[in-house]
Amino acid sequence: MDIRFAKRMQGLRASEIRELLKHTQNPEVISFAGGLPAAELFPVPELASLAHEIVLQEGCRVLQYSTTEGDPGLRRAIAGRMKATRGIEAAAEGILVTCGSQQGVDLTGKLFLDEGDAVLCESPTYIGAINAFRAYRPRFVEVPTDEDGMVIPELERLLEGEPAAKLIYVVPDFQNPSGRRWSWERRCRFMEVVRRFRVPVVEDAPYAELNFEGTPLPALKSLDENGLVIYLGTFSKILCPGLRIGWLFAEPSLFEKYVLAKQGADLHTSSFTQRLIGAYMERYDLDANVLRIREAYRHRRDAMIETMEQVLPAGVNFTRPGGGLFLWAELPPELNARALLALSLKRQVAFVPGGAFFPNGGHENTLRLNFSAMPEERIEEGVRRLGGVIRAALERPEEQPDRPAAAVSA
Amino acid sequence: MDIRFAKRMQGLRASEIRELLKHTQNPEVISFAGGLPAAELFPVPELASLAHEIVLQEGCRVLQYSTTEGDPGLRRAIAGRMKATRGIEAAAEGILVTCGSQQGVDLTGKLFLDEGDAVLCESPTYIGAINAFRAYRPRFVEVPTDEDGMVIPELERLLEGEPAAKLIYVVPDFQNPSGRRWSWERRCRFMEVVRRFRVPVVEDAPYAELNFEGTPLPALKSLDENGLVIYLGTFSKILCPGLRIGWLFAEPSLFEKYVLAKQGADLHTSSFTQRLIGAYMERYDLDANVLRIREAYRHRRDAMIETMEQVLPAGVNFTRPGGGLFLWAELPPELNARALLALSLKRQVAFVPGGAFFPNGGHENTLRLNFSAMPEERIEEGVRRLGGVIRAALERPEEQPDRPAAAVSA
Repeated sequence: MDIRFAKRMQGLRASEIRELLKHTQNPEVISFAGGLPAAELFPVPELASLAHEIVLQEGCRVLQYSTTEGDPGLRRAIAGRMKATRGIEAAAEGILVTCGSQQGVDLTGKLFLDEGDAVLCESPTYIGAINAFRAYRPRFVEVPTDEDGMVIPELERLLEGEPAAKLIYVVPDFQNPSGRRWSWERRCRFMEVVRRFRVPVVEDAPYAELNFEGTPLPALKSLDENGLVIYLGTFSKILCPGLRIGWLFAEPSLFEKYVLAKQGADLHTSSFTQRLIGAYMERYDLDANVLRIREAYRHRRDAMIETMEQVLPAGVNFTRPGGGLFLWAELPPELNARALLALSLKRQVAFVPGGAFFPNGGHENTLRLNFSAMPEERIEEGVRRLGGVIRAALERPEEQPDRPAAAVSA
Repeated sequence: MDIRFAKRMQGLRASEIRELLKHTQNPEVISFAGGLPAAELFPVPELASLAHEIVLQEGCRVLQYSTTEGDPGLRRAIAGRMKATRGIEAAAEGILVTCGSQQGVDLTGKLFLDEGDAVLCESPTYIGAINAFRAYRPRFVEVPTDEDGMVIPELERLLEGEPAAKLIYVVPDFQNPSGRRWSWERRCRFMEVVRRFRVPVVEDAPYAELNFEGTPLPALKSLDENGLVIYLGTFSKILCPGLRIGWLFAEPSLFEKYVLAKQGADLHTSSFTQRLIGAYMERYDLDANVLRIREAYRHRRDAMIETMEQVLPAGVNFTRPGGGLFLWAELPPELNARALLALSLKRQVAFVPGGAFFPNGGHENTLRLNFSAMPEERIEEGVRRLGGVIRAALERPEEQPDRPAAAVSA
């Protein structure tokens, strides 16, 4: 049968990360490829007991249909938390509960993007946003990014060349994939530019509370005087991802449109899992949980960085993230990270080649490493193996396969 | 701020049903407007105990990220149930778990519809599908429908006029809103036409198991030799809707595209609520639960029909559904159901004006009544009040307000 799909399906490809995850289920493989939070830190007994209580006492409500906007108690709790942790004056009425922040990205594409519209983003940027936006067939305009965030003169230059730019998508806190956090000064200058050009901004902030040193920085949204910033949050990294609860905070005129788009997409997010998280926040100490996560991930990051410093050859540069789940490495330009992955998988180590995080391609000598998902010893062992693979590749570059795709799925 | 939305947002309007639901939270109002299953039939103690056990014993897995396709055990259980109840030879590998069947409709729009593409549908059709598809800016081609389903010569005529038709969307079992079920003969003739024209079909089947007499009829999908039918199922009406678990079954070439589209939309559906339903099916008797629901809804339908026969004036026609949640009424042509709703709400009775179920408008003298959500006495009282409102309107048609919208939100 010759099915005729919509044009938008032409650009959609399987996410490299998710395809990889399938091949790294083997417990022998040390996988730095995923972006999984540490499951051993999930508050399992607390959630088990709450789940029982909520279904038993509120079953008629939490197992029933509910409103698209979300559970009122959870929306209030989220508003309170945004104020406390990110400096955002949020009203519960502006918060839409979503299926993870991924749904917030997709709904944003649906609201804003016609074919050919320009979306500005960091270079590199989050692969899940690339995939979600790609279904709406925009052009991606990559803005050069340094240690402190988007490079402002470059942003200005690119916005001048794109007077009809529809969106700027950014992850200012411990970005996936780079692990970098924007400085305070850069946030302020970014918002000045945004105000001047009046372009809506999507601030995707899943990792903002996972700072290993100092305090979280206020969100871009806290500097937003014109209702230009759409803020995306999630419980996936500060509690657990399997309940699929994220949220979106936007000005009233935008909020209404988001509600309509979500209504068409899935009516509403599970009443039960929304209430479960709301009850957890009422009854337990989410801040304490975040502290436990920060502490564990800090040790894991330290183990990764220390081992990398020991075993990686000169010419390999990498970020030292102050929080989050990821570290970003740049190999000497003659190495191809996709080819390296094929070799690496033979040594039972996985990572994500960095090229996938650049919507317009290139940068094949980069890679992303996750440090949240395993204990220090395993991180150290994996990095040692990876170091061996990189050293071997640098010594015998001719052994790098040209087309690693087949080997990857092996 | 002058935000420039995507063109697709121009056609999106708030769902009349969901806006109405907000005004019918008042317990004084007898609401036939929603489509809520009977919450008192949810297996609350069973789900409470399973929820506790699953989080406690499998928390590290069910609170973690999982695959886009869905929980393997649940997908196997769904495949088995589709065979047993609908005669469909389904492989677990072809089943994608979705956030309700609503997400299946939305993803279908995303996969297939470019602006201006023709979607054929029953006239009337499900309002949630109209809203989901509308975001992709298709043209709706309404196919006349009688007691037995789509009128086949009309379908053939319309398909001949639309050689590039992209989709046919149908709800063959106890349709929302009409309550009608397609006959076996009509199903066979429909599939012959579909085979001839080779147009993909979305079979949305949330009510198929809720037959009050006889046995469920085999699905269109069971007659599908060419992989043309995309089947949408859900647990919302046979178990409970608040867990937001539906599914989609499609041929491999389509399935892959659906997985990609869902990945961009929300990564995956809650691992926990998927597992909860999977465990319920393993441990308890879902068939027995369906029997309880059928029995209760049959009594409610009977109460509604008997009272309608007593109190409604001549000239009001209505369906006698053999299953499902809805009944459909046609008023004398001089009455406008939107205007009638405004009057009806003053008597504390709500329903959905039928015009909303016709994507191209018209049919303002029709209305949809839900009978699943309340006990018989309340149904009888509500129908009596509604009968009074209709009789009064027929006697004094000049009192019908012209623009009822404001009154609706009152």
